Amino acid sequence: MNMYEIIQRKKIGKTLSDEQISFFVSGVTNRTIPDYQTSALLMAICFQGMTKEETFCLTRCMTHSGDVIDLSQISGLKVDKHSTGGVGDSTSMSLAPILASLGLKVAKMSGRGLGFSGGTLDKLESIPNFNVSISEKKFFEIVENIGCAIIGQTTDVVPADKKLYPLRDVTATVDCMPLIASSIMSKKLASGSDVILLDVKFGSGAFMKTEKDATLLAKLMVEIGENAGKRMGALITSMEQPLGEKCGNSLEIIGTLELLNGKTSRLSELVTFVSKKLLTLTDVNEIDAENAIEKSIQNGDALQKFYEMVEAQEGDVSYVQNIKEIKIGTPIDIFAQNDGYVFEIDTEKIGNSIVNLGGGREKKEDDIDFSVGVEMKCEIGTLVKKGDLLMTIFHNEKGLKNALDLCETAFKITEEKPPIHKIVHCYVTKNGIEKY
Amino acid sequence: MNMYEIIQRKKIGKTLSDEQISFFVSGVTNRTIPDYQTSALLMAICFQGMTKEETFCLTRCMTHSGDVIDLSQISGLKVDKHSTGGVGDSTSMSLAPILASLGLKVAKMSGRGLGFSGGTLDKLESIPNFNVSISEKKFFEIVENIGCAIIGQTTDVVPADKKLYPLRDVTATVDCMPLIASSIMSKKLASGSDVILLDVKFGSGAFMKTEKDATLLAKLMVEIGENAGKRMGALITSMEQPLGEKCGNSLEIIGTLELLNGKTSRLSELVTFVSKKLLTLTDVNEIDAENAIEKSIQNGDALQKFYEMVEAQEGDVSYVQNIKEIKIGTPIDIFAQNDGYVFEIDTEKIGNSIVNLGGGREKKEDDIDFSVGVEMKCEIGTLVKKGDLLMTIFHNEKGLKNALDLCETAFKITEEKPPIHKIVHCYVTKNGIEKY
Repeated sequence: MNMYEIIQRKKIGKTLSDEQISFFVSGVTNRTIPDYQTSALLMAICFQGMTKEETFCLTRCMTHSGDVIDLSQISGLKVDKHSTGGVGDSTSMSLAPILASLGLKVAKMSGRGLGFSGGTLDKLESIPNFNVSISEKKFFEIVENIGCAIIGQTTDVVPADKKLYPLRDVTATVDCMPLIASSIMSKKLASGSDVILLDVKFGSGAFMKTEKDATLLAKLMVEIGENAGKRMGALITSMEQPLGEKCGNSLEIIGTLELLNGKTSRLSELVTFVSKKLLTLTDVNEIDAENAIEKSIQNGDALQKFYEMVEAQEGDVSYVQNIKEIKIGTPIDIFAQNDGYVFEIDTEKIGNSIVNLGGGREKKEDDIDFSVGVEMKCEIGTLVKKGDLLMTIFHNEKGLKNALDLCETAFKITEEKPPIHKIVHCYVTKNGIEKY
Repeated sequence: MNMYEIIQRKKIGKTLSDEQISFFVSGVTNRTIPDYQTSALLMAICFQGMTKEETFCLTRCMTHSGDVIDLSQISGLKVDKHSTGGVGDSTSMSLAPILASLGLKVAKMSGRGLGFSGGTLDKLESIPNFNVSISEKKFFEIVENIGCAIIGQTTDVVPADKKLYPLRDVTATVDCMPLIASSIMSKKLASGSDVILLDVKFGSGAFMKTEKDATLLAKLMVEIGENAGKRMGALITSMEQPLGEKCGNSLEIIGTLELLNGKTSRLSELVTFVSKKLLTLTDVNEIDAENAIEKSIQNGDALQKFYEMVEAQEGDVSYVQNIKEIKIGTPIDIFAQNDGYVFEIDTEKIGNSIVNLGGGREKKEDDIDFSVGVEMKCEIGTLVKKGDLLMTIFHNEKGLKNALDLCETAFKITEEKPPIHKIVHCYVTKNGIEKY
């Protein structure tokens, strides 16, 4: 077997065998296949696609290209959630304590922010002393005892993807369903949970531009997960505007605490939805699930779990117990330039303004200023008058001019009323698609 | 401008601009574009193709990626011929002196053999002291004074192709019309002749497997050449069996001398055809051209030119003047195993048998035994009886067993009579296609 034959076979539209896919993935992982052959195959896959069986096999080989976390020593059902990323998306931080308070186990491995999209680890590290690099042993203990913990990847999870992704990124081979699906799902499968809920975003601020593509991707990922013996669900959600009102690291901690204190918002709507669907995947009926989630927030169980997780992960609990003391940047307001409806909000611009302020990374090595960010004071469909407050920027001087330029041009205000903006559009499981 | 955009553009089927193609070719030549991006673009081109304008531009950029030979200091019309390669194809060696004897100038740069296909430089070097590495100055002088010379590439001709071709070879991106056409034509255009005749082979022993594909490639190359201001013609010829009876380095020198002494054969038929078509491209009418070629051979002018070229390139003229003294290997005959018609001859096997005997190279560095080779004693359509002589192998022990295995299984002899085997199938010019 050699790589030339594999490229040629895919190029002419034939199906690759399990042995060929396995040869490819291990060759990529061991660096025995040169990048120029890998990129030629990736491009051929972009044109010829992959069958479901090929995609299952690719995901399987990628999953086993490195360490696979064994969560079997933790009792109970282990649940996980994955979002394809966005601006103001802090769902993981409230979801984990809510689900833990209801008896599920959330052993979550999260990532850092890169580009305009924030990262859960950075947000948590804005809590003084919060440790996202605890040992696997301690991680398992916390999940067993408290029910949830959120850490970074400690072990060598899916090294094949660490080689493939940067290459796809520079060879225009990112937007290909089987490659996206296997990249995401191999990491989820290697993380070891039993139940996985995916949040597939679409829209201007997301990688999938249309609902149709997001749904296709979701279906494929659900099939991959079910094929690997997992219970799977996938939400198709809109990323046409920042998800939470508060965006930025410390600001999203505040948003999470407000949510766990019972404040409702678009963010809490999604968190409740995701929690509910995850519970239904563990055979709880939908009404019971909704009631249980509401009760957990109302009686403070979820907030208590959050405090416990912070403490277990060495964070300063008094910091999160005193929301008003959390330090944020100097506010500066952005006002509407004319009367009308907020028709569009350029989510990528908002995300990039936070990066400019120092709240995100342009390069992996960049330091982060946790205290900067933005707070949205309107959403798509809000009727405003000239001079009304649209959003507030919280800054420490750095990058302010760029951030102002970006935010001032991020709003399209029109006489025309925009269509009603839903967050959740569909829910995909092995049984089919529910529309909302 | 960056390479990512160029790959992405081609991937989604858009046309590349002249600036983008130029950026790509110079980046490949200077090695500022990494191979993995180059191979991704090459694969995208395989799927999306290139417009004629893109192909013209690619060829132009490749031609000018290195030295372009300026033949303007040589008087008269400079003509060139290019064959896509084969077994027993020694046309260049007789064509050059024939055309020179008729007043044309042939400043020919040839290649070495690699794989099962022989190379003109190796064949000429079987003549003691023949120098294929003379200076450009001397090369020009010989062409001016005698009318023909054949040398290797002295200068840095089309370095872009020297980078692209090996990459295409290992990424399954060789069989793509615009890439093949620009690779061949950039080298021809950089060699500086005014009139170019292409011999595009098809069949089991050629790169193009079908007449249709060979014709498409020929049409594209003729258009590229005409677009660059050259007079162009292209023959579509069959490579279903070795072209000459004698195959191997010294054996093909003998074949050339026999041809120039007036012996007719399938090889002489093609040489006459190619010479005639080249003359018609210089505005000689076809009947006059045929008569002139016949006369040049009959009265010994062409043979005399060959001697002059050998002498001018420092070769031993007495060697070529005494055909019978030319040393060849020990003969061993291959006989028919049954009665019937020779239906198929596996040309690649015959070519590989010569490589096995030491008459060709598997790797660039390999030495060559000039004296080995084969002589065909039948052709497609010959009626044979069991025990009749099919071919003779000339060997020096090395690789004999492999060569025998290959040659003994190279013939398919059937009761069924094969269709009549033509050499020349079509002739393509800017004015259209003539069928034969």
